[in-house]
Amino acid sequence: MQSPSRDIRLRNCFSMLRHLLADHPSSRPDLAKKTGLSVATVSNLVTELIDLGVVVEAGLEDSGGGRPRMLLGPNTDGGVLIGVDVATTYVKFEAYDLALQVLFRIEEQVDLAEDTPEKLLDHIASGMAAVREVLADREILGLGVSLPGQVDVAGGISVSNPNWNWRDVAFKELLAERLGLDAPIYLDNSLKTVTAGELWFGDGLGVERLAVVVLGTGVGVGLAFDGKLYRGATNSAGEWGHTTIDPNGPVCRCGRRGCIEARIGAPGILRQWAAMGCDREWETQESAIEALAADWKTGEEPAVRTIEAVARDLALGVANFVNLVNPDLVVFTGWVSDALGEALLPELRRRLPDHVLESALGALRIKLDEQSRNMVILGAAALALEGHLNRIKSVGSRARL
Amino acid sequence: MQSPSRDIRLRNCFSMLRHLLADHPSSRPDLAKKTGLSVATVSNLVTELIDLGVVVEAGLEDSGGGRPRMLLGPNTDGGVLIGVDVATTYVKFEAYDLALQVLFRIEEQVDLAEDTPEKLLDHIASGMAAVREVLADREILGLGVSLPGQVDVAGGISVSNPNWNWRDVAFKELLAERLGLDAPIYLDNSLKTVTAGELWFGDGLGVERLAVVVLGTGVGVGLAFDGKLYRGATNSAGEWGHTTIDPNGPVCRCGRRGCIEARIGAPGILRQWAAMGCDREWETQESAIEALAADWKTGEEPAVRTIEAVARDLALGVANFVNLVNPDLVVFTGWVSDALGEALLPELRRRLPDHVLESALGALRIKLDEQSRNMVILGAAALALEGHLNRIKSVGSRARL
Ligand SMILES: [Zn+2]
Ligand SMILES: [Zn+2]
Repeated sequence: MQSPSRDIRLRNCFSMLRHLLADHPSSRPDLAKKTGLSVATVSNLVTELIDLGVVVEAGLEDSGGGRPRMLLGPNTDGGVLIGVDVATTYVKFEAYDLALQVLFRIEEQVDLAEDTPEKLLDHIASGMAAVREVLADREILGLGVSLPGQVDVAGGISVSNPNWNWRDVAFKELLAERLGLDAPIYLDNSLKTVTAGELWFGDGLGVERLAVVVLGTGVGVGLAFDGKLYRGATNSAGEWGHTTIDPNGPVCRCGRRGCIEARIGAPGILRQWAAMGCDREWETQESAIEALAADWKTGEEPAVRTIEAVARDLALGVANFVNLVNPDLVVFTGWVSDALGEALLPELRRRLPDHVLESALGALRIKLDEQSRNMVILGAAALALEGHLNRIKSVGSRARL
Repeated sequence: MQSPSRDIRLRNCFSMLRHLLADHPSSRPDLAKKTGLSVATVSNLVTELIDLGVVVEAGLEDSGGGRPRMLLGPNTDGGVLIGVDVATTYVKFEAYDLALQVLFRIEEQVDLAEDTPEKLLDHIASGMAAVREVLADREILGLGVSLPGQVDVAGGISVSNPNWNWRDVAFKELLAERLGLDAPIYLDNSLKTVTAGELWFGDGLGVERLAVVVLGTGVGVGLAFDGKLYRGATNSAGEWGHTTIDPNGPVCRCGRRGCIEARIGAPGILRQWAAMGCDREWETQESAIEALAADWKTGEEPAVRTIEAVARDLALGVANFVNLVNPDLVVFTGWVSDALGEALLPELRRRLPDHVLESALGALRIKLDEQSRNMVILGAAALALEGHLNRIKSVGSRARL
């Protein structure tokens, strides 16, 4: 595991970068004020960030009579970070400069039958070839890849993959061979990358105890404590989808009965809608969930009752982890949250006091992720940025974030 | 919140003390070897621990030709730590020397009708008078008090108390006034103190992700991550007892339906036993649970079926937090665990694979607390010891524990 001083260093770097991205150029004293770090710590970190090519000097500021202050900004002409989101039906790529602006974006369609690591490597190599062609003159600092299923981060292993029936594939090694890339590769699953994205570049920044609820085909809860991703003993923390909320509930795709995912994952929601009287059919899950959102907006009875039922299950499940973990903030994200969050959240807020203990409820904020950015990919790139920043030696006290 | 360097310092101190308590006298190089700390860090910490009166020099060791090595031991003649466990029917006191040996123990009986803070203060003052009389010549370094219900640690407030219907009592201030004690007072609830006890002096030492399941009248899960008690945003983390495992389950004492506590807290277990055909009656809950354990041992059908049913519910509830938190170790403690743990644990082990995801199960150890010590009281004293050790300035790198 990481050392605590490395954790603090990363936290301090991300805090400075975040402030620098939001408002630049900025002087060292400005950054010290915003981060709560000492000017000495900021100066040490800035020196190293400049050496690493992450930060550049960007002009001088008149300091009112004294020596003019050097202003700093992100090095947008420096190296690039690549984020990759691997899903069942697509592989998405984004290349970022060090201001985390998207320089290039490309998507490969994946056929459901392409279920071998080799096929997936073909798609990643093809996407990466396009990225490298467009950004030929830029150094790639790191590649972060989000994979579905269970990932052994240290070993770079895709331990299990629910969609493709993989076991223990040395994916990082295969990918490194295939791409022949000099830059380091970081592998993790999407629950972890999206949480890293929220922690460093989303609503989670500065939150001591963060929970990120991902609502999609599956559901999960990414956790971050003390400004650090919480992975658990085997990087499988957050498997909230397979916690039981009703031993008599429907059978889940994991084979167990009564998992919350069986009720509030997209297929579970659509099952509930059908049970409430909706007999239409759709090409895709995604279009069906969109139709449910549209029906709810116009007050169609089956849709309204489905939202109520899903919100009731969601409230039980959210209360269960809130009572256990007592977080400061719960952020809802994922494509189902994007489509139905507006409908679900007011119902959820109304129901939570019935299930969450008063003391935990008092400290709790809940919100929808309103970032326009793809947090899974940005989070994957953030893992690569973490790796790059880990070359820094300075520590200092801890930033306020 | 505490600073990270303070966390590391505490972790290092407790690691050294733990090894020193287990095997003393020990030399500085011995301690460095056992803790994984550098000899320099150990030497700095030892110097400060000697200054604080926690550690003493205890003779010389021949180092085979070189300069003889100074041997160290706990300062058993130094100050004392007091732990207090406040429950509905008793207040228990233990005074410890700095080897954490019990010097004196006393118990006050509390009448169920004595439900005001004043009455409770009377009992604590009476017990403390007895402690001070017996240990008149010893300095009290700190007093740790475990209270039922919700506790605001920083403010020293008893926020709510389920048994006595209190709200927001400034208990620490009242207690300080009443006792006129020079030593600092540390207040927390029993879930937190028992977890501190397990973390520093029990099975939790060196465990990165620890869960302590307390089974009693109520149930809860104390969490400790990175060698540090996890409190949550409002010190109410661990309220596992009021997580829902069955929306159609029995009504809980918190007023909600389907909490796991309503099934596996002592009253819930006894209700299940009655439903299985046991129609005997007992003076106390405790004697009833003992009778259930005895019946299970002799293979009485209602008892065997009750244990099966409780183990089934326990497996669901344990799986829920294991899937979420992915701990390395789950320790079962509390008076119901003491009585029924031997019966429940094999059933629990058998059932967990049906509910816990494979990757989390692979890393998981579960065990009964086999400490002969009262971990609630020892843990309360450990909080006082933490406070005392926080005067130390040295940090160093992190101990292996
Ligand atoms: Zn499941
Ligand atoms: Zn309850």
